[in-house]
Amino acid sequence: MVQAFVLIQTEVGKASTVAEIVSKIPGVIQAEDVTGPYDVILRAQADTMDDLGRMVVAKVQQVEGITRTLTCPIVHL
Amino acid sequence: MVQAFVLIQTEVGKASTVAEIVSKIPGVIQAEDVTGPYDVILRAQADTMDDLGRMVVAKVQQVEGITRTLTCPIVHL
Amino acid sequence: MVQAFVLIQTEVGKASTVAEIVSKIPGVIQAEDVTGPYDVILRAQADTMDDLGRMVVAKVQQVEGITRTLTCPIVHL
Amino acid sequence: MVQAFVLIQTEVGKASTVAEIVSKIPGVIQAEDVTGPYDVILRAQADTMDDLGRMVVAKVQQVEGITRTLTCPIVHL
Amino acid sequence: MVQAFVLIQTEVGKASTVAEIVSKIPGVIQAEDVTGPYDVILRAQADTMDDLGRMVVAKVQQVEGITRTLTCPIVHL
Amino acid sequence: MVQAFVLIQTEVGKASTVAEIVSKIPGVIQAEDVTGPYDVILRAQADTMDDLGRMVVAKVQQVEGITRTLTCPIVHL
Amino acid sequence: MVQAFVLIQTEVGKASTVAEIVSKIPGVIQAEDVTGPYDVILRAQADTMDDLGRMVVAKVQQVEGITRTLTCPIVHL
Amino acid sequence: MVQAFVLIQTEVGKASTVAEIVSKIPGVIQAEDVTGPYDVILRAQADTMDDLGRMVVAKVQQVEGITRTLTCPIVHL
Repeated sequence: MVQAFVLIQTEVGKASTVAEIVSKIPGVIQAEDVTGPYDVILRAQADTMDDLGRMVVAKVQQVEGITRTLTCPIVHL
Repeated sequence: MVQAFVLIQTEVGKASTVAEIVSKIPGVIQAEDVTGPYDVILRAQADTMDDLGRMVVAKVQQVEGITRTLTCPIVHL
Repeated sequence: MVQAFVLIQTEVGKASTVAEIVSKIPGVIQAEDVTGPYDVILRAQADTMDDLGRMVVAKVQQVEGITRTLTCPIVHL
Repeated sequence: MVQAFVLIQTEVGKASTVAEIVSKIPGVIQAEDVTGPYDVILRAQADTMDDLGRMVVAKVQQVEGITRTLTCPIVHL
Repeated sequence: MVQAFVLIQTEVGKASTVAEIVSKIPGVIQAEDVTGPYDVILRAQADTMDDLGRMVVAKVQQVEGITRTLTCPIVHL
Repeated sequence: MVQAFVLIQTEVGKASTVAEIVSKIPGVIQAEDVTGPYDVILRAQADTMDDLGRMVVAKVQQVEGITRTLTCPIVHL
Repeated sequence: MVQAFVLIQTEVGKASTVAEIVSKIPGVIQAEDVTGPYDVILRAQADTMDDLGRMVVAKVQQVEGITRTLTCPIVHL
Repeated sequence: MVQAFVLIQTEVGKASTVAEIVSKIPGVIQAEDVTGPYDVILRAQADTMDDLGRMVVAKVQQVEGITRTLTCPIVHL
């Protein structure tokens, strides 16, 4: 199992809608609006790193209003 | 009461118009054109952090020509 | 109540120790090692934005090995 | 007369002291602690762009605990 | 007299055309295509900081294909 | 002979297609999807730095879905 | 098996030595000096994302002269 | 012949001395203090990309007070 934070930038004025939609994607555990260089931070999980990458590209990035996503895999050191 | 600087990037050629429009938004105390990585810097205030976030999304980010906003809440340490 | 994600950069080789120490600071709900531009992501809460700012400066930033923190307050839009 | 915002990054834990010290430098109009990618934002003025540059280098950057300054001159478009 | 470097990002595939056009703007001394985070670097001069700001907004940023400009005023310390 | 890594950002949802297309451009040795601040990393070679620059602008940046490229020439120190 | 590019920033003047040393770390496939925002780019592999994270922290980041590493896991979309 | 701009960040308070010293390095054509995200911008030339890389590492980066250099090779597209 792999988990990651995904730091999301949205088009201006879209943060709230984006957070609501991504929070319903299977595998997304948590999604919040934030201020600062990012607009939404979500936490997601998948079976493998490849699955996580696919989920971000195929599900998260399809949400209208998202302009950039930055995936930060959680590692257990 | 919460205050914040909002560092704004605009579409090329729109800085001046953006500064003028945002300066009239209620809660905006100050708005200036600047050069550098940002194009306009404004100072705003609201009752709570949530109000401030809403004001930036609902008022500031609705101004045409704004491409990114970076909210830096002022804290009294 | 205000919550925030704090994105932390550490000195090279210190991420693991930093994550462990910050996770024990009162008000810190969650702290994880990540890869990417940040090394540790934590989630914290405090009564007010000022309290949160003070907690980050007085508690989190005192942890040895932290070089930069980026506080992203959660807003309810 | 030239004015500028100076966005300041400090060593961890030094934001508060830095804001207090820089606020007393002649030519500094305003200095606040903020959260986000910067730690202190100040507003300063000088007679010319060169004077402003010298003031930042000779006065502001001499303050202990400052690691980076980013000067954003205010322009009247 | 104020001089500045202006670091320019362009739409993909437009660097060459942008460099050629901006090099003909009055006040632009030098304009080159570069690789790296910027696509074109130009050097310009104007009578005052405000004139320089106006020139960048009114002339340089009007060139089609430019997405961001970062003005770095030259200072004599 | 000059080699370089080209770090590519794509429109959301386009990383996979971009990686596939750029991998077929003559001179591109390697192209992979990655997560993080970049979406695709490729390795390319050309006879001279100018040829490499031209190849990135004329071939790589023409691929639909690419929003930014960052060329990092390999140097033998 | 997980592979990643690791984009490395070094202290000034250390790029060459760092590239040579990291290239000998087990799991590192490739390591080159580059110019631009990064100084060394390496390619590494490990059994799992956690192993990769540990390898970067325990082996790569221990190399003297490295100031930041940015791990970009390769994903097969 | 290869030319490049080298964007330099210095320790706080060192910009002026750094600009003066680097301007005397053989191959450096021009070096100026600037404000903004960089502190000094120089223009240099060398016979090959490798020579330029070596010059930056062996000569420019040896100057005390420099913390980061970002080399942007000029390309003729």
